[in-house]
Amino acid sequence: MTPRSPKHPDSHGSTHNDPASVVFEPEFVDGLRNIFDNLVVFNRFLGLKITNITPERVSGRIVMRPELVGHYGYNRAHGGVISAGLDSMGGVAVMAAIGARHMDEPPAQRLTRFGKLGTIDLRVDYLRQGISEHFDLHAQVMRLGSRVASTRMEFCAADGKLLATGAAAYMVS
Amino acid sequence: MTPRSPKHPDSHGSTHNDPASVVFEPEFVDGLRNIFDNLVVFNRFLGLKITNITPERVSGRIVMRPELVGHYGYNRAHGGVISAGLDSMGGVAVMAAIGARHMDEPPAQRLTRFGKLGTIDLRVDYLRQGISEHFDLHAQVMRLGSRVASTRMEFCAADGKLLATGAAAYMVS
Amino acid sequence: MTPRSPKHPDSHGSTHNDPASVVFEPEFVDGLRNIFDNLVVFNRFLGLKITNITPERVSGRIVMRPELVGHYGYNRAHGGVISAGLDSMGGVAVMAAIGARHMDEPPAQRLTRFGKLGTIDLRVDYLRQGISEHFDLHAQVMRLGSRVASTRMEFCAADGKLLATGAAAYMVS
Amino acid sequence: MTPRSPKHPDSHGSTHNDPASVVFEPEFVDGLRNIFDNLVVFNRFLGLKITNITPERVSGRIVMRPELVGHYGYNRAHGGVISAGLDSMGGVAVMAAIGARHMDEPPAQRLTRFGKLGTIDLRVDYLRQGISEHFDLHAQVMRLGSRVASTRMEFCAADGKLLATGAAAYMVS
Repeated sequence: MTPRSPKHPDSHGSTHNDPASVVFEPEFVDGLRNIFDNLVVFNRFLGLKITNITPERVSGRIVMRPELVGHYGYNRAHGGVISAGLDSMGGVAVMAAIGARHMDEPPAQRLTRFGKLGTIDLRVDYLRQGISEHFDLHAQVMRLGSRVASTRMEFCAADGKLLATGAAAYMVS
Repeated sequence: MTPRSPKHPDSHGSTHNDPASVVFEPEFVDGLRNIFDNLVVFNRFLGLKITNITPERVSGRIVMRPELVGHYGYNRAHGGVISAGLDSMGGVAVMAAIGARHMDEPPAQRLTRFGKLGTIDLRVDYLRQGISEHFDLHAQVMRLGSRVASTRMEFCAADGKLLATGAAAYMVS
Repeated sequence: MTPRSPKHPDSHGSTHNDPASVVFEPEFVDGLRNIFDNLVVFNRFLGLKITNITPERVSGRIVMRPELVGHYGYNRAHGGVISAGLDSMGGVAVMAAIGARHMDEPPAQRLTRFGKLGTIDLRVDYLRQGISEHFDLHAQVMRLGSRVASTRMEFCAADGKLLATGAAAYMVS
Repeated sequence: MTPRSPKHPDSHGSTHNDPASVVFEPEFVDGLRNIFDNLVVFNRFLGLKITNITPERVSGRIVMRPELVGHYGYNRAHGGVISAGLDSMGGVAVMAAIGARHMDEPPAQRLTRFGKLGTIDLRVDYLRQGISEHFDLHAQVMRLGSRVASTRMEFCAADGKLLATGAAAYMVS
């Protein structure tokens, strides 16, 4: 089929900002962090915390602990820790991109858009074993459409070595 | 993130039919076949022809020929023949499912929905070498939402052996 | 590129069995279950238990509980529960297929092959919201090569409704 | 499952080079280009030509023409042109990485490794419509193991705009 359709403009009709020039209010960043770190219960179990949010790239961290081990006898993170973490980070990246597009809305209103977000699909490529004291996760939005957003994600060891990569699509409205 | 969102009902508000009980009019089937076999130019090059269309499953066929070879010295189809064919078949499956949902519209109107279809993403798993005199392709829709449809596809040898499988998401409106 | 290579026979040179005719010894089934349910720590957290193992298809179950929730205010499983569960089940399906291929080896020896298994990549398609009292997971091997195995997986609600599908590739030696 | 396995070192036991410091002989580059541009028949149909080969990144180009159109009435490339092109480019990137690892072998011997390469699976994310006078494709290897290689690819318009991204896994021996 033809990649996406001719009827889908890249945006919404709402305020358009160059993402690179947007600076988020602390209220928006704190609100997004609270939803993500505390209210998404499974993130709390993973120990996944947001470390940085910008309109163009978000980062998070998971500190390794025994519950996350995938293979008895090795101290390696389970592949599910990686897939779950990358899915979550992709979602935050989309929220940040949506937030940057709707700077005309008050922070609280932008945050309600989080409830409309849903993952369509996810791919994870496991490159190297998940061995590290902590893991740094990064995500960026490749394209934010009016209905679908596409992201790329990375899962890195504490020394920066790339352990896994991901790609996901999200429904945004 | 949460799989898809709570705000997305499975359907449209339009006429709802049990897909299994829908029988397409010849006008719809012929129109869909004409678009697919003739007007989508790249399908014509692949030699991909629809062999069967029902609301729940569509099938097509590619006859092997030298232009489709992937590797000099072997008579194997290129992986791109497989990925292109599966993408196209998934799209037809979505069109059939949409057609079954909108039986209240005249065939010609339903066919205009084809122009709105776009592939969001595609995965292909290559299981065995693409060696056969012809290939049979099958696709079915796993879920048709109001905005996104998900499909699964298969690429088989003439003897029925499964050579590759695929999965794709499409934007439908 | 050409799908896989001409130098890769489908099998190993070891004993070949028709998977459908193989019946596993209780020792093998119990051993695999023990590794999976108890020694893979993250499965224990997910609450993922194997419910059935045959050479051609494996099933498991996750009982929903608050820690697995993905979205505050809804009782839906996080997408990471789904991706982690499907990855694990695909791995067990590969182990069962390998076990059926090597029935000439004693059960304990076959079980050591588990340590060689690694996920190459994973795709998950999220079809419907993960709302159910428990979830039934199924996996089957589409092809077991000498080095790579490909699987398909399903994640279903208690009423059998399909909530998500997956596909993964595993390194097997 | 655990991401890949502890038994798989990143390399082969053969000569190890820092890819960044390797300079390919013209004989190797010309040989790879000849296989790719001429002997892989389907690439010839796509009109896909290699434009640059280094150990760390390869690039190619497809000039748009009517046979590649995906949708009657629009001059957009079919999604299959994109998936086929990205699959091919990922394969060349793997060949370049293998070539850099085996600089101790004469070029002709390194080129025979091409026959062992096979695609395991492919994912393509379609971001924007494929409209351009020509397309530039890029691929890089994220990890080259002794048996499996993982790649990321990009499909860009003539003005550099990113139209699609891809990821693939290849069997390398």
